[in-house]
Amino acid sequence: MNNFTFYSPTYFVFGKNTETETGKYVKKFGGTRVLLHYGAGSVVRSGLLDTVKKSLDCENITYVELGGVMPNPRSGLVYQGIDLCRTEKVDFILAIGGGSTIDSAKAIAAGVPYSGDFWDFYQGKNVTEAVKMGTILTISAAGSEGSGDSVITKEEGMFKRATTGDAIRPMFSILNPELTQTLPAYQTACGATDIIAHIFERYFTNTKDVEVTDRLCESLLLTMIKEVPKAMKNPNDYEARANIMWAGMVAHNNIVGVGRDQDWSSHMIEHELSAIYDCAHGAGLAVVFPAWMKYVVDHDVNRFAQVAVRVWGCQMDFVNPKNTALQGIECLQNFLKSINMPSNFAELGAKEEDIPKMANIACFGDNAGGSVGRFVSLKQSDVENIYRLML
Amino acid sequence: MNNFTFYSPTYFVFGKNTETETGKYVKKFGGTRVLLHYGAGSVVRSGLLDTVKKSLDCENITYVELGGVMPNPRSGLVYQGIDLCRTEKVDFILAIGGGSTIDSAKAIAAGVPYSGDFWDFYQGKNVTEAVKMGTILTISAAGSEGSGDSVITKEEGMFKRATTGDAIRPMFSILNPELTQTLPAYQTACGATDIIAHIFERYFTNTKDVEVTDRLCESLLLTMIKEVPKAMKNPNDYEARANIMWAGMVAHNNIVGVGRDQDWSSHMIEHELSAIYDCAHGAGLAVVFPAWMKYVVDHDVNRFAQVAVRVWGCQMDFVNPKNTALQGIECLQNFLKSINMPSNFAELGAKEEDIPKMANIACFGDNAGGSVGRFVSLKQSDVENIYRLML
Repeated sequence: MNNFTFYSPTYFVFGKNTETETGKYVKKFGGTRVLLHYGAGSVVRSGLLDTVKKSLDCENITYVELGGVMPNPRSGLVYQGIDLCRTEKVDFILAIGGGSTIDSAKAIAAGVPYSGDFWDFYQGKNVTEAVKMGTILTISAAGSEGSGDSVITKEEGMFKRATTGDAIRPMFSILNPELTQTLPAYQTACGATDIIAHIFERYFTNTKDVEVTDRLCESLLLTMIKEVPKAMKNPNDYEARANIMWAGMVAHNNIVGVGRDQDWSSHMIEHELSAIYDCAHGAGLAVVFPAWMKYVVDHDVNRFAQVAVRVWGCQMDFVNPKNTALQGIECLQNFLKSINMPSNFAELGAKEEDIPKMANIACFGDNAGGSVGRFVSLKQSDVENIYRLML
Repeated sequence: MNNFTFYSPTYFVFGKNTETETGKYVKKFGGTRVLLHYGAGSVVRSGLLDTVKKSLDCENITYVELGGVMPNPRSGLVYQGIDLCRTEKVDFILAIGGGSTIDSAKAIAAGVPYSGDFWDFYQGKNVTEAVKMGTILTISAAGSEGSGDSVITKEEGMFKRATTGDAIRPMFSILNPELTQTLPAYQTACGATDIIAHIFERYFTNTKDVEVTDRLCESLLLTMIKEVPKAMKNPNDYEARANIMWAGMVAHNNIVGVGRDQDWSSHMIEHELSAIYDCAHGAGLAVVFPAWMKYVVDHDVNRFAQVAVRVWGCQMDFVNPKNTALQGIECLQNFLKSINMPSNFAELGAKEEDIPKMANIACFGDNAGGSVGRFVSLKQSDVENIYRLML
């Protein structure tokens, strides 16, 4: 096991009607003037925004609003948010939405006290100071409610890049599974795929003897496999939504990923797809992950066999473990198909001719140094080959 | 799933040689004058205390010392510690040791700013303020390094009681698995049993549809079953020690126990044993747990069958699930025997004639209201019956 530090100081408030306590928690963490940051009109139409405002009113907390966050959140709105917070002397940012809204709020939080361009933080500069922020989560997916991570797309060039820092961890996150019950099936499935990807990205490692985090990762995968189909069949299944929501947080606050090398190449390979075609991140991952797995399976057949046996319930082929390994990948593909996720470029609207460009950006874009991945280090030609497996 | 809040703000520093960074972390969290609190001379003999002092010296942090914490830590030393901290104007308490030392440090931390008797906190009063504290863990067991819990034995009457509060959560905890390699096999096994008990106490619940926490608990049990025998066979197996150490923290910071009723009756039944006979807490639990399980198995045969199948790898008896349930309990007993834990009163040095008294204190002592347990509510006569199953 590698040495590590683990820090997850966010206060989680989980369960039915917990959004009505928002004001109480903003006050607990010292907020007096809030930016309400959100995305589409659903937050308005569902009445959630009004509920939140009422709870702020009860605590005499004032607020300004900035809606309009899009999936794959853009730099333009971040600049607007930074200006607004400065003008309005905001001391607390409240993200109401999914990962995109939370990531946009984190970018604004980091940008407000910084004299330079917030994009610096997405090009390697450490975030050391930020306006306090909290979240009210409406989509189980990105895990941003419990992480110090943020991903933003820069409109000039459509670069999608990430930053991370303890200063942009939410002070609190309100997780009410009921709020996810109105999500369309497609978004539910995209979110579930993102969660599954976060687990796999921690799971495929070259670090030896990490049984505790192996087992924890597997337990979350087993949960997802059981609960996601229930939520797809009955969107109002509160218990399924609740299990998925907590799994989504645990999958990404890194408690199941400490002490081991991780491999985020699939996320990076996917980022180019959603940056160019603006497809849902989870849908992109559903296409990328099986392709990546098939390409790297020979690097550690036993690890792929382990997940096949422990998670998918495959019988171990002791004579030829690769059969088991491949069977596990097939199980994943079948599972993703069963929740109506795409499985190839055509279904994503992606184009073969863009492959060299995407592979180039994945390997040589901002932050990248000519290759991606740690489980298997992938050069541009490897990434191209993986994209071709998705055709 | 029940509504819940989850908060675990402790900064964990895990791995080889991390104790050399102690001074840096005391400084990070604002400590300038430290109480070094520890137990037996092993902390001195091993050189650990010197290492810690050196790292404090490097940061110009001064310190006073209070050793002598015993297993099942006593109120007497807590009063001494409170006086010492006040006289010496200590602003940070550093616990160097296992759960007993950490719990004693937490009691001191809560007592220093409080004008009344610290024991009030162990009789139901909320801890709202405390001196900041940190830990350097030397035994994987109690999980106190990541919890807001503390258990102290009051010398008058030998009452063993617990308190809990966010104010006594460690600011940081340093976890170096190497420090646990010198532990005698018996203490290693006692610690492992305590960790396993913390998982089971969360696992046996009447809350339905809690797959995510069920699976997380099972993943920790699977880890312990695999790693503990390795550490028993080769005390210097760093990787086994590391897996056990992280599992011990995760098992008790409650991330695997949220949203579900828990049943701590076994801990309470055990507390009377270790309070009276001063046996190791883990050894007491090894005797109590199988007896408790046999007594309550009929309350939810399927839950016992689930752990038998998922954790112990038993074949499900679909005609008579109770066979599977009982087989799982037998597997636990065999496992505990294999790591040389006691299995009955005689091996603990406990006496049959004390049963009524212990059952009475468990059900009617401080904090107790005539019964213990939530999975199954146990009256005094039930607790007596459970003790008799240990004869």
